[in-house]
Amino acid sequence: MFFASDNWAGAADEVADSLRQHSEGFSPAYGESDLDKGLEQRFNDLFEKEVAVFFVGTGTAANSLALSSMNRPGGFVLCHREAHLIEDECGAPEFFTSGARLAPIDGPLGKIDPDALHTGLKRLDPNFVHHGQPMAVSLTQATEVGTVYTCDELALIAEHTHSFGLPLHMDGARFANALVRLGCTPAEMTWKSGIDVLSFGGTKNGCWCAEAIVFFNPEKAKELPFIRKRAAQLFSKTRFIAAQFHAYLNDDLWIRLATRANEMADALARGLWSSSEVQIAWQCQSNELFVTMPQALADSLQARGACFYPWPVPADQANKIPTGHSLYRLVTSFATTEEHVQQFLALVANPDT
Amino acid sequence: MFFASDNWAGAADEVADSLRQHSEGFSPAYGESDLDKGLEQRFNDLFEKEVAVFFVGTGTAANSLALSSMNRPGGFVLCHREAHLIEDECGAPEFFTSGARLAPIDGPLGKIDPDALHTGLKRLDPNFVHHGQPMAVSLTQATEVGTVYTCDELALIAEHTHSFGLPLHMDGARFANALVRLGCTPAEMTWKSGIDVLSFGGTKNGCWCAEAIVFFNPEKAKELPFIRKRAAQLFSKTRFIAAQFHAYLNDDLWIRLATRANEMADALARGLWSSSEVQIAWQCQSNELFVTMPQALADSLQARGACFYPWPVPADQANKIPTGHSLYRLVTSFATTEEHVQQFLALVANPDT
Amino acid sequence: MFFASDNWAGAADEVADSLRQHSEGFSPAYGESDLDKGLEQRFNDLFEKEVAVFFVGTGTAANSLALSSMNRPGGFVLCHREAHLIEDECGAPEFFTSGARLAPIDGPLGKIDPDALHTGLKRLDPNFVHHGQPMAVSLTQATEVGTVYTCDELALIAEHTHSFGLPLHMDGARFANALVRLGCTPAEMTWKSGIDVLSFGGTKNGCWCAEAIVFFNPEKAKELPFIRKRAAQLFSKTRFIAAQFHAYLNDDLWIRLATRANEMADALARGLWSSSEVQIAWQCQSNELFVTMPQALADSLQARGACFYPWPVPADQANKIPTGHSLYRLVTSFATTEEHVQQFLALVANPDT
Amino acid sequence: MFFASDNWAGAADEVADSLRQHSEGFSPAYGESDLDKGLEQRFNDLFEKEVAVFFVGTGTAANSLALSSMNRPGGFVLCHREAHLIEDECGAPEFFTSGARLAPIDGPLGKIDPDALHTGLKRLDPNFVHHGQPMAVSLTQATEVGTVYTCDELALIAEHTHSFGLPLHMDGARFANALVRLGCTPAEMTWKSGIDVLSFGGTKNGCWCAEAIVFFNPEKAKELPFIRKRAAQLFSKTRFIAAQFHAYLNDDLWIRLATRANEMADALARGLWSSSEVQIAWQCQSNELFVTMPQALADSLQARGACFYPWPVPADQANKIPTGHSLYRLVTSFATTEEHVQQFLALVANPDT
Repeated sequence: MFFASDNWAGAADEVADSLRQHSEGFSPAYGESDLDKGLEQRFNDLFEKEVAVFFVGTGTAANSLALSSMNRPGGFVLCHREAHLIEDECGAPEFFTSGARLAPIDGPLGKIDPDALHTGLKRLDPNFVHHGQPMAVSLTQATEVGTVYTCDELALIAEHTHSFGLPLHMDGARFANALVRLGCTPAEMTWKSGIDVLSFGGTKNGCWCAEAIVFFNPEKAKELPFIRKRAAQLFSKTRFIAAQFHAYLNDDLWIRLATRANEMADALARGLWSSSEVQIAWQCQSNELFVTMPQALADSLQARGACFYPWPVPADQANKIPTGHSLYRLVTSFATTEEHVQQFLALVANPDT
Repeated sequence: MFFASDNWAGAADEVADSLRQHSEGFSPAYGESDLDKGLEQRFNDLFEKEVAVFFVGTGTAANSLALSSMNRPGGFVLCHREAHLIEDECGAPEFFTSGARLAPIDGPLGKIDPDALHTGLKRLDPNFVHHGQPMAVSLTQATEVGTVYTCDELALIAEHTHSFGLPLHMDGARFANALVRLGCTPAEMTWKSGIDVLSFGGTKNGCWCAEAIVFFNPEKAKELPFIRKRAAQLFSKTRFIAAQFHAYLNDDLWIRLATRANEMADALARGLWSSSEVQIAWQCQSNELFVTMPQALADSLQARGACFYPWPVPADQANKIPTGHSLYRLVTSFATTEEHVQQFLALVANPDT
Repeated sequence: MFFASDNWAGAADEVADSLRQHSEGFSPAYGESDLDKGLEQRFNDLFEKEVAVFFVGTGTAANSLALSSMNRPGGFVLCHREAHLIEDECGAPEFFTSGARLAPIDGPLGKIDPDALHTGLKRLDPNFVHHGQPMAVSLTQATEVGTVYTCDELALIAEHTHSFGLPLHMDGARFANALVRLGCTPAEMTWKSGIDVLSFGGTKNGCWCAEAIVFFNPEKAKELPFIRKRAAQLFSKTRFIAAQFHAYLNDDLWIRLATRANEMADALARGLWSSSEVQIAWQCQSNELFVTMPQALADSLQARGACFYPWPVPADQANKIPTGHSLYRLVTSFATTEEHVQQFLALVANPDT
Repeated sequence: MFFASDNWAGAADEVADSLRQHSEGFSPAYGESDLDKGLEQRFNDLFEKEVAVFFVGTGTAANSLALSSMNRPGGFVLCHREAHLIEDECGAPEFFTSGARLAPIDGPLGKIDPDALHTGLKRLDPNFVHHGQPMAVSLTQATEVGTVYTCDELALIAEHTHSFGLPLHMDGARFANALVRLGCTPAEMTWKSGIDVLSFGGTKNGCWCAEAIVFFNPEKAKELPFIRKRAAQLFSKTRFIAAQFHAYLNDDLWIRLATRANEMADALARGLWSSSEVQIAWQCQSNELFVTMPQALADSLQARGACFYPWPVPADQANKIPTGHSLYRLVTSFATTEEHVQQFLALVANPDT
């Protein structure tokens, strides 16, 4: 019963097989192989547009280098208060930008509130040298608390961002989970909604380590080859990432994997709907379900083999948590089985067993 | 006939199989899995000492983060003029240290000359604030031109380095190839010879992407977990690196792979010994053979399917290259076959065929 | 009627005369002159302790380099939400530390709340690599809103800080104004209260550009000479700063200048006490008086020659501002005259004149 | 007999008087005063062009921030092997650019050899990501060894630089000394010869601390206000720098001061021409005279009160130094008197006295 994180899973069979298969033979290093080159075209097709795509090894790298490409001295990146950028990257965005600041914006359930963003942007007088200057907005799709922006919501964020002359970055560590939920196209959820640069994540959805930085205006990516190499993110045997993406994007595997993960989260939600002790904190929109329960129950569940983590209560949800309850995160993945779900639900139903 | 680089090879079967096998199941992320933990002990055994080991994704990352751990303001890292650090990392060492400078030291055939190092260190008055201060020495084993320091030579470099109060780093991107050639133990070639921190490379010798930073004094590694995370080099599914090292170190696979690569380089050297047109530039000591030949011959060989690169003539070898010849590098790897070697030798013997 | 900022004043006569006088003759550069060396001893005497002192050109430099000396990867500096570090240095602390983050701590009237600090420190698990690690606490004396920590309050902040193994920095851009108000010694307000490193400001109190970084444990300052030089803050003709401090510290000039500035602020406060339209927002404790008034009145006063700035309402004061009023800052300095004060008070008393 | 450095002098009377005079009264901070604004126009007039000018505190800051404005990831700045940037700034250029590398170019007597520059630029393949990419060329006028580029020589360097699409920076710490020697206009020695950005130094020529970064294409300076503030180089009481430049540029004071310094260097040279023991190493072209003499003589001169420093022999001059001689630098300044010169010449003539 592994609901700790989607990165506790390994690699999807197709991805693992592809990597095994491409381990043979010789091919040019540093992105020059046919496999690498083919992937570049594959991304163009995927996004229905000529894009510039750069493979890197971690989501933190994808985010940090995307922001580096937008860097300005004294720059501010506006993002949600609980964004991964702020909470879980140990200062990498600040380090790779030589000190840009992450300015937290509020909003319910992990989503930037457009009005709060507008207020935040207006407060940053671009000519007041003492405070610094805005340089970018970054949002997360799906968010850290499992919610999803609609395309209209994305477009509104983009409108505010662009009206201040700034680029909009999307942290898509769980891009596929959000896409599946919305049922739209990759193009619709990105550049057609005003996204300028995307961190396209594969790792959480069945790859080992496969992340891509996608520029929807390739002109803006001219320095990225150097930014990436200087950041120690240009792998020599690049085909090991390419082989992952090759399988990942083939036959809509990535869509199927995310669909599976989302369905398992839904199954958890359905199963917990009638629970008297475990309450669903807010609607599950991707592969992360947040629930509340008494800590004693959580301890008991964990003692009997359920892996999941507590989660800090978002500021906007503080008064919605039932008294005596704490907040917990249940994450499903492509590797989650119905058996895991049923085992967990059975445990919840019979906590004393 | 792939002699372009050892990173044109894929992954060794055992490594690829291990990765395939470990793709199943759930395990804790960020280095907390049993597989990860077991590897830490494995490195202690390997080096006959308690070490602190950190997995990262690229050799550039290993080198840059190792140096970051030794960082000082206005710091100088002394290394060979043709070191990978200087020539092939796009300023990553400088970037990760926020501007440390790489001070080139001369020496024949890619090896730091101990006297030149001593002179270089003496010239850096540690109290003369205007110029900066020494912070570390870094050497490469095997070197960029395929030569190998003996343990005595390493110890002499270490003696000079330590006499100035500085730590000594070894870039071991081709550690195994050097070790096999010397026939000594990992301990002898590192801390017993005075090495303080090692970049232990697996990628060029049969892994996909597996590099480790090894501190022989774990006390010096206290900030490294943060340095690594901030550098976007803490992978979430760390077991994908651990699985590679697991196979790599098992049953001396790494030794066997390097032995194979070195033997293939030796076979090339033997076969070229009597060639009238292709001359061996200097003795092959690892898996890189440097040869000279007329450019027309190189063009012809390449046109007929031999992959290899030209190489800039090291300053100290400038007047040893036969007139009309250029310098070329032939790199073998675990994946090089005798057939490749024989094909190449046949081509050389019959350039017009 | 110049109440815009204490940096609208020029230099005190004694400081200007000293600089004029020391413009003659030759003396060693880069801090080696007798005047420079004498100043070092002067700071030891001032603080009743052997200190390490480094002159720099701006308060931002003093703060940023002090924090650089405490730098850790992924580091957090906890400081008040409205600290100068956060609000008015354009990311310099982040830049000079290669990306340390400034973590805002709440507290009424510009002073860090000790409980909030404790909570903030406890939340930063020093072993949770994803979030980063605490590296220092920085407080401002006097604060950005003109309030002053008592020595007991400083000691409590220090106790919390040190209990987490962290150093405590004081931004003393208005050190003298606070000191005069407390009536204690420099030693009492610093190391005897637990301050580890001080930015000792002279610029706002009658110097042209004279700031000093003072380490109360000189062992911690070993890298500072290189940090300063690398930061382009080692002036060649250092005596031009030394000459300012020489006059500044001579015959308690600095105390007299700050006393004057504070008295003028008090005179403003007394004069406004009975005003029906201008209200004192909170008690003036240094040379900054914060008042509220209708914006129309402020406009009128400014139109008739009074220089002063609006100020954002601190979060903790939001519901204390009279309806229809805005917040304004009146800053006095050594150069403020009673005539200026009386002119201003007369204007307020007769806004329509 | 002070010939150690031009920064051993204090400030010229006119500069010191101006600063004394402007110490009175109130005026806006951070460059908004009338004095500051007037200076901006003054620089336009000086260079016969609309320029963007930024005052900073040190020459190292001027150079480092000028290069920051040209920064590229993995960037190389090509400059003379013995440039101040490389030898005497403790890694500041590297630090402020987050790791750009200074690539040394050879050339006789401190001047970049145009062919060596061309070769160096050609070697930096702008598409070879492993090595890095060129970002700027920087030259020094007058050079570190007292020589001066003619305008034709500058134009040739600029032609090479621009043909590779790069900007050309001039470190003008001794701009005035070079200008006086050439007898040309500031415009001719800068943008008319292809200089894009200038570090215009006042400190070594009679100011306390007055350096300006001048952009001949103001469009390229858009980020500089933030770069400067973030670098802690925006002084609050900016008029203290403005007051220096005000006097410095008034009535050609700066020309007169540099003329004086150069004449004193010439007087030294003339006086030493016939000396049998002290030999002029190369022609003095600014205010720095390099001479050779036996070390025993230098010791004796220093023991009797002559202040001057030994200097490392430039590589290109190594075989031109008389046997048994060492190299020494004699620097004159606006404050050097004929009496100092005569005293020194008398000492040389009578070394045993």
